[in-house]
Amino acid sequence: MELNLILGVSVIGLLFAGYLIRNVMKRDTGSERMQEISNAIKAGAEAFLRRQNRTIIYLALALACVIYILYAFVRTPQTTDPAAPSQLALWTTISFVLGAACSVAAGYMGMWVAIRSNIRTAAGALKDMNSALQPALRGGAVSGFFVVAMSLLGVGGLFAVVQSVGVTSDPKSIPLLIVGYGFGASFVALFAQLGGGIYTKAADVGADLVGKVEAGIPEDDPRNPAVIADLVGDNVGDCAGRGADLFESTAAENIGAMILAAGLYRANESVFHAQNLTLLGVLLFPLVARAFGIIASIIGIMSVKTNDKEDPMRALSRGYYVTAVLAMVGFFVASRWLLGPDYYFNFFLCGMIGVLTSIAFVLITIYYTDYRYRPVLSIAKASQTGPATNIITGVAVGMESTGYPVLVIAAAIVGAYYLGEHSGLQNAGLFGTAVATMGMLASAAYILAMDTFGPITDNAGGIIEMSQQPQNIRERTDRLDSVGNTTKALTKGYAVGSAALAAFLLFSAYLDEVKIYMPSFSGSINLNKPEVFVGAMFGAVLVFLFSSLAIRAVGRAAYSIINNVREQFKNNPGIMKGTSKPDYGQCVDIATKAALKEMVAPGLLVVLLPIAVGLAFRWLFNATGRPPFGASGAEVVGGLLMVGTIVGILVALFLNNGGGAWDNAKKYIETGAYGGKKSDTHKASVVGDTVGDPFKDTAGPSLHVLVKLLSTITLVLAPLFI
Amino acid sequence: MELNLILGVSVIGLLFAGYLIRNVMKRDTGSERMQEISNAIKAGAEAFLRRQNRTIIYLALALACVIYILYAFVRTPQTTDPAAPSQLALWTTISFVLGAACSVAAGYMGMWVAIRSNIRTAAGALKDMNSALQPALRGGAVSGFFVVAMSLLGVGGLFAVVQSVGVTSDPKSIPLLIVGYGFGASFVALFAQLGGGIYTKAADVGADLVGKVEAGIPEDDPRNPAVIADLVGDNVGDCAGRGADLFESTAAENIGAMILAAGLYRANESVFHAQNLTLLGVLLFPLVARAFGIIASIIGIMSVKTNDKEDPMRALSRGYYVTAVLAMVGFFVASRWLLGPDYYFNFFLCGMIGVLTSIAFVLITIYYTDYRYRPVLSIAKASQTGPATNIITGVAVGMESTGYPVLVIAAAIVGAYYLGEHSGLQNAGLFGTAVATMGMLASAAYILAMDTFGPITDNAGGIIEMSQQPQNIRERTDRLDSVGNTTKALTKGYAVGSAALAAFLLFSAYLDEVKIYMPSFSGSINLNKPEVFVGAMFGAVLVFLFSSLAIRAVGRAAYSIINNVREQFKNNPGIMKGTSKPDYGQCVDIATKAALKEMVAPGLLVVLLPIAVGLAFRWLFNATGRPPFGASGAEVVGGLLMVGTIVGILVALFLNNGGGAWDNAKKYIETGAYGGKKSDTHKASVVGDTVGDPFKDTAGPSLHVLVKLLSTITLVLAPLFI
Repeated sequence: MELNLILGVSVIGLLFAGYLIRNVMKRDTGSERMQEISNAIKAGAEAFLRRQNRTIIYLALALACVIYILYAFVRTPQTTDPAAPSQLALWTTISFVLGAACSVAAGYMGMWVAIRSNIRTAAGALKDMNSALQPALRGGAVSGFFVVAMSLLGVGGLFAVVQSVGVTSDPKSIPLLIVGYGFGASFVALFAQLGGGIYTKAADVGADLVGKVEAGIPEDDPRNPAVIADLVGDNVGDCAGRGADLFESTAAENIGAMILAAGLYRANESVFHAQNLTLLGVLLFPLVARAFGIIASIIGIMSVKTNDKEDPMRALSRGYYVTAVLAMVGFFVASRWLLGPDYYFNFFLCGMIGVLTSIAFVLITIYYTDYRYRPVLSIAKASQTGPATNIITGVAVGMESTGYPVLVIAAAIVGAYYLGEHSGLQNAGLFGTAVATMGMLASAAYILAMDTFGPITDNAGGIIEMSQQPQNIRERTDRLDSVGNTTKALTKGYAVGSAALAAFLLFSAYLDEVKIYMPSFSGSINLNKPEVFVGAMFGAVLVFLFSSLAIRAVGRAAYSIINNVREQFKNNPGIMKGTSKPDYGQCVDIATKAALKEMVAPGLLVVLLPIAVGLAFRWLFNATGRPPFGASGAEVVGGLLMVGTIVGILVALFLNNGGGAWDNAKKYIETGAYGGKKSDTHKASVVGDTVGDPFKDTAGPSLHVLVKLLSTITLVLAPLFI
Repeated sequence: MELNLILGVSVIGLLFAGYLIRNVMKRDTGSERMQEISNAIKAGAEAFLRRQNRTIIYLALALACVIYILYAFVRTPQTTDPAAPSQLALWTTISFVLGAACSVAAGYMGMWVAIRSNIRTAAGALKDMNSALQPALRGGAVSGFFVVAMSLLGVGGLFAVVQSVGVTSDPKSIPLLIVGYGFGASFVALFAQLGGGIYTKAADVGADLVGKVEAGIPEDDPRNPAVIADLVGDNVGDCAGRGADLFESTAAENIGAMILAAGLYRANESVFHAQNLTLLGVLLFPLVARAFGIIASIIGIMSVKTNDKEDPMRALSRGYYVTAVLAMVGFFVASRWLLGPDYYFNFFLCGMIGVLTSIAFVLITIYYTDYRYRPVLSIAKASQTGPATNIITGVAVGMESTGYPVLVIAAAIVGAYYLGEHSGLQNAGLFGTAVATMGMLASAAYILAMDTFGPITDNAGGIIEMSQQPQNIRERTDRLDSVGNTTKALTKGYAVGSAALAAFLLFSAYLDEVKIYMPSFSGSINLNKPEVFVGAMFGAVLVFLFSSLAIRAVGRAAYSIINNVREQFKNNPGIMKGTSKPDYGQCVDIATKAALKEMVAPGLLVVLLPIAVGLAFRWLFNATGRPPFGASGAEVVGGLLMVGTIVGILVALFLNNGGGAWDNAKKYIETGAYGGKKSDTHKASVVGDTVGDPFKDTAGPSLHVLVKLLSTITLVLAPLFI
């Protein structure tokens, strides 16, 4: 029953995505000039994604072999194994490959639709606001539903298959056999986000520095040879990257929550029995809750309509509230059904904590990145004394912005744990935090739709600008574009918040898993052991090194683009006069090559460091067995994971919010404050904006993925460190 | 015997400092114009320090009352108390007050001499290089010996007094009664470093932005109204601040190591007995090792001579190596004498690890901040495409620079622990890491002398510049000044390295202490408990909030100075023509007021947050006693302390090295690279340099203090969280 519901709703989600595609595709595609531009973007984006996917697939297949070999030949089989060692190796590898494949597919589909929605949004803008808003949101929603439904289908399907082929007799062990799915998804997400993030910001920084600053031409001017690369970047960075990011969030959270649900059942078997609650019901509760979230999001998306007078942001918010309220109702139903009338209520409240947490994160993000409030205004003010004070203030704002989110997360974790612990069930505190995470991710499909809305409207604006449409049409897309910027910022806040909450769930699952394989494990990650402390330091430093590599990659790639643009301007003076067309393809090509090259080093660092640390300390432990090597590899990696997560989230907040604040400080000055455009104050603010670009669109979002990848990688490899 | 040696050497250290003062003071003080400038600096520095000390003393007295009240009335007395509760309250408070008083005195003395050495160095430069080098180094050494000898005298003296008045019958308990000394020292150090750091960089940034950038006049030009404030800043920031910083380092390390030595003795009592090793010998080993270090530093300082041909840096390095080798010999003698011939050797090796760690930190700092190497060169190259890429690359370099130091610290901790564990004594691993820290701090007096050398030569250069001396004299002070910049950067690397190593020692001492008060405590800081995880998040976020406040403080204070300078230029056009003198006093006054105002918020944050967290979770633990409040306040604070330390060290490295790299990228371009001075590339590099100023001279060094303050505050308040 539960499984049928889950699989059924996943299919409905996919069908709905198909319906949205048809709905978008049959819309008007505008003039020939517009199509020409759109086709150039399409070609660039598809070429990049194809090449990026090829690289990722090779890397994933190589890693799949490594995982199989490690499991089958390096690992010491334990009597506590949840299945026969060969089966364990096989299913871990299969689920990894499947997770990777689904993640690639979800990312590709999201972008496929996005690069077809942009032209339709632009064409709609020629008519009225509603005709522009709907294809943008529905195009974005394709990505949202594809991601969430595919992740649910993958996890649910794997569960069904493993159960039916009889790999293990105990359903509680199934989540341990399919943890690879989350890892595969994260692995792809990391490279997708990194590669896309480097591409988009290299093109953006390159286009801005030569175009806007040196040549003095406006943004999206057709004379700028890097302008198409810039528009391509919006798709590959924001659509494909964020799609993969949220795909792995939901997949990892699903599996982690199931592991904790298994633990909950174990601790309360007799109680559940007395209440006629089935093991399968408890185990699949996270997936059922997600399924209800999909239905809520479908209704939410369909309810969004607007007209030329309304602020489009209001229409989007209305849809979000519809989704959130329906998701709460669904949550209530799911928890009462599967956790029983005596125990469900505290867990329902945990889910509400999750919803409130997501709202709190959105509000905090607005406070720190919107120019109605003090932080951004202080940066704008500081720009009067030049770029240096602009940067100093922006860094201070970014660092400050870590404060409230930590308070919120702390309150959410402690609150949900408290509710779980006092639910009447035994050892239910951790499960309470897991349920809060589910609550937070319930509206993921809608949030992702709003996120992908951003690059679509951005592209639509670019198409309108480049095809030189009249002023009133431009104003329409400008308004949509600014809404898109807001939704992008909000979803980034949402993504980091859900990463933080999911992380606590995931490393609880990690410890549960280690305990199953090694019953002697105390379950404690004791920072007072020198080796665990060292692991913790490695976790923290990993975040800094990764950010450094990601930021530097953008700098290097942008440098190549800048040189190419300068050369084109020099060799062909007709470009600036508007008499001859620049060669857009060169910049697209350079950005593609550079992004693919630069994403490898930071990506491999994140994957290999935890493996190396875990195996090294496992070996040292086996060789000496006493301090400073008295902790198992699993405990050392636990320290790495937890402190890496804390630092990763803080640095991500710093980078995202600092970057967002710089961006909007510039926009505020462009409204006319402190001398407005072309003033020295504005120039100073452009420096901050450019610095913020790789912070907020490359390193920051990649850190969300890093945080979750650390969890999934350790979940998969935990048995090796013992 | 041991105690007499310790107290005797402390007195010798102070007498030597007195000798150095006489030696410096009898030197030539140059022309009347030079004295005039020097007097202005002196007056400004003394006025600031007097007002700052007044503020600090009030704050310290208030805190002393709080400590007494908490100990005497809030704390629940335990049967395991090391002394009668009233005595515990009394001596903790007394030692806190004494530590604070000694720290104030050491900082004041260091600056007193520095502001008298600058003019004598300048006057010496009129003659030859040796006559300039010697007063600068010896003036700096006064600060070094005052700090180290006072800290040793304070700890040794308190030990002797507590022992002789018979507060406790067990000498092993004495360190627990005098932990307040370290806290008092750290408390003063935090405010001294913060206030001085804000002052110096506000004046520097203010002077540069209006003077160099807007008015286009050179550095240290007498027409700049902020120039005296800038020179005052060098003294109050670098001399007084760093002096207080290292004072607390040595004091905290002394007491922490004694607590661990007591633990070592407890675990190996029969072995020590059999070897005829006394309790007092083991307990005082850290102080004896420090005493030998002082003697080594005296000889090192006296051995420094140079001539006009030699690079002055070589002479300083020579002195350092003399000190290091003699310190090693002293270490060998002390360990063999007090730890016995059968067990000393591994500990001697631990000491060597400490020495090697300090050298490694210095080399890493050079690599990341010297323009002979890739990191700084990459920033200079990126400056060609403007300030934004300069900043992006600098941030990437700063983040990258955290990698090697973490590797070194990890190796040092694990290596020293391993050696201790395999020394033949029981539970000696932690003591091994403590001994490594002692080794690292053995040359502290010499290092501090080199550090204070920096601001003295900087000031001397300013005096020479402002009194318009001939070119060849300027070149002499320029050379000395550049050596001073190098030594300042190196000592910053040393300070952060020693903070990292000392931190591990200090929180081991913290856990030892908690175990003594609460024998049921497992000694584990288990990150898997939600409340400990929350504590860890608070520790990490504290670092970000503190840095944000410190950086923003500089921005705000600089803004006031800039406005004043602009006003002076506007109201009195004669200043720029050189016909009338600017009012230096106004800028000095503004900087003083701003620094004192701005230092309070970040300072109180650091002190109050751990206390609040500890007391809140103690209360929640007592109220519920089950998860998520199942860990005692002591464990939650332990999580805060450890993760706060890790993050604090990484962020400090990021800020220090990033700032240093920007500074030297600018200097590299000034040598003529990429168009040299006045080119656009140079202007871009000036932006990075200005951004780096509050990073490397305010927030970064304050974070070293924060890291140690967290340890000492928790050491003192541990009994309250139980």
